[in-house]
Amino acid sequence: MSEALEPGATIGILGGGQLGRMLSVAAGRLGYATHVYDPSATVPAAEMARHQTAASFDDIPALTRFAQSVDVVTYEFENIPTAALDVLEDLRPVRPGRRALQVSQDRLTEKAFLRDLGLNTAPFAAVDDTDSMHVALAEIGAPGILKTRRLGYDGKGQVRIMTPGDAPEALSAMQGAPAILEGFVDFSHEVSVIAARGMSGDVACFDPGENVHRDGILRTTTVPARLSPAQRTDAVLMAAKILNALDYIGVMGVELFVTAGGLVVNEIAPRVHNSGHWTQNGCAVDQFEQHIRAVTGQPLGDGGRFADVVMENLIGDDMDRLPELRAEQDVAIHLYGKAETRRGRKMGHVNRVKR
Amino acid sequence: MSEALEPGATIGILGGGQLGRMLSVAAGRLGYATHVYDPSATVPAAEMARHQTAASFDDIPALTRFAQSVDVVTYEFENIPTAALDVLEDLRPVRPGRRALQVSQDRLTEKAFLRDLGLNTAPFAAVDDTDSMHVALAEIGAPGILKTRRLGYDGKGQVRIMTPGDAPEALSAMQGAPAILEGFVDFSHEVSVIAARGMSGDVACFDPGENVHRDGILRTTTVPARLSPAQRTDAVLMAAKILNALDYIGVMGVELFVTAGGLVVNEIAPRVHNSGHWTQNGCAVDQFEQHIRAVTGQPLGDGGRFADVVMENLIGDDMDRLPELRAEQDVAIHLYGKAETRRGRKMGHVNRVKR
Repeated sequence: MSEALEPGATIGILGGGQLGRMLSVAAGRLGYATHVYDPSATVPAAEMARHQTAASFDDIPALTRFAQSVDVVTYEFENIPTAALDVLEDLRPVRPGRRALQVSQDRLTEKAFLRDLGLNTAPFAAVDDTDSMHVALAEIGAPGILKTRRLGYDGKGQVRIMTPGDAPEALSAMQGAPAILEGFVDFSHEVSVIAARGMSGDVACFDPGENVHRDGILRTTTVPARLSPAQRTDAVLMAAKILNALDYIGVMGVELFVTAGGLVVNEIAPRVHNSGHWTQNGCAVDQFEQHIRAVTGQPLGDGGRFADVVMENLIGDDMDRLPELRAEQDVAIHLYGKAETRRGRKMGHVNRVKR
Repeated sequence: MSEALEPGATIGILGGGQLGRMLSVAAGRLGYATHVYDPSATVPAAEMARHQTAASFDDIPALTRFAQSVDVVTYEFENIPTAALDVLEDLRPVRPGRRALQVSQDRLTEKAFLRDLGLNTAPFAAVDDTDSMHVALAEIGAPGILKTRRLGYDGKGQVRIMTPGDAPEALSAMQGAPAILEGFVDFSHEVSVIAARGMSGDVACFDPGENVHRDGILRTTTVPARLSPAQRTDAVLMAAKILNALDYIGVMGVELFVTAGGLVVNEIAPRVHNSGHWTQNGCAVDQFEQHIRAVTGQPLGDGGRFADVVMENLIGDDMDRLPELRAEQDVAIHLYGKAETRRGRKMGHVNRVKR
């Protein structure tokens, strides 16, 4: 196995949101300095990092200086432009690697990758124009959901198609962007596996969590999830298959639908994941530390869980509930230091720990 | 009860060591910014704080600017000069307050305070010169331990007196500083209570931990400690008595000797305490968050514990054991980001969590 980075080394983090912030804190706990790169100067991660660069992802000189100042580069979001990667990869290791980004930046590529691995996904077809929309609808039928292939998150860039008559309006909502039509999956609930793979190829998974969304945004994750022992094993094996196929290094979030016919992969995220925040108060090594361990070449924690936890996101006006949350027992509050509360904006989360 | 500081407010922290660092991370988690004040520019807390002042504690203009930039002032060490407090207190609330500092900055004052509360302490007497040394030895006898009244920590400024013949050498080791002679206490083990008191007067204690020292430095803290239910209750009541008497706001470490005749107070520290680090991996609200909750006027966590934990300090060359520690399961590593490893220097700690 390769040598782990020694304390004192610097980890570059692309993206300065709450995930970057919590990664930075975890890195500091392991003795590493961090350098956060984000187009905005006032980002949640900045005050928890030793160094900060405020520059766009197409600023080649800034990217170059950033890479030269760090020992390894990682990221908190998957939409890193390819040109930026070209610059960074020439200078320092980027972990997780490019393959994971290529696959996850494009919903069509991702679905095809998963299908080729033999994993179940929602039925899907590419939609670029009216013709391909007709073909896709004929194949998949309605209801379905039309999504942009790139850059959607938290339900953005998605339109439901309940009947074929909805198709033209849905297509025009894509504004000419390449899209994918996905058939509905009849699932009872959604779970996610927060999986990690280290530099020696070892894989460790946290206990799957059960997710509840509202308006396309994650509301709560509960561990343990409602899964049979066989489903639990399946979930972990599927995640490991994905990580191994990508020669992945780091933490990945794998969202799975639980259906009568087995587990169906919804999507993957090549980074720490909102549905893994519960690990901060249920495990000795949480997902953020696990990711830092992986990208610095350390052995992984085993993901062992010592408490039941319910994670709840604090979104927008949920911040008004702070006084009650503070007075509740066994609630760990995690705020992101965002100055402005906006509708639909993730402001923080709480972990309710069951003794 | 007074209103809690809102997220976005700034907490000033005097002292930028590891305790300040972990306080700063906890403050960030609750949505607060921090401003760290320390004579040195390269301190562990700096990279986890939004603002930093590197200036001495007698720099009145710097102290003034610091106080004006924050909403409340707290500290990670008890030896804040009185003149600095005068400046700060005029401008902003300082929590915990001056009384706790006055009492704990002087071992003689502290012992007298505890005795006046009706609590058991080691026998003690003031030693300023040869004459008072004779009086003290006649009263307390040998063996005993001679300590400077001020500024000692981790076993520094302490000399053992095994027989009266050791007295002259011990006295000269004090270099003229006012001292205190303490009689030995015949104890089976030492425990500490990490206690907190909020702005509404509510007190919450974490489960007492059992401490093992080597060379005057804390090595391990184990929870649960070996204590009978009655001793456990006593420990908490004693801690609460101390906090109430000081009208204290924040977290305090109370070290207790367990003896056949009951619990004896060893010393108190008006701040988060090394023996409370286990709370980071055993409680929903750890001692650092508890302290921030107290000084910002939030309700306290109840101190509930959901795992057995052994905290081990990493001192000096213990850092060489990092590779093995990383490979151990259920070990949470907490390093302080100190560039230089020195003998006797606290570099980090690990929490071993028992599932």
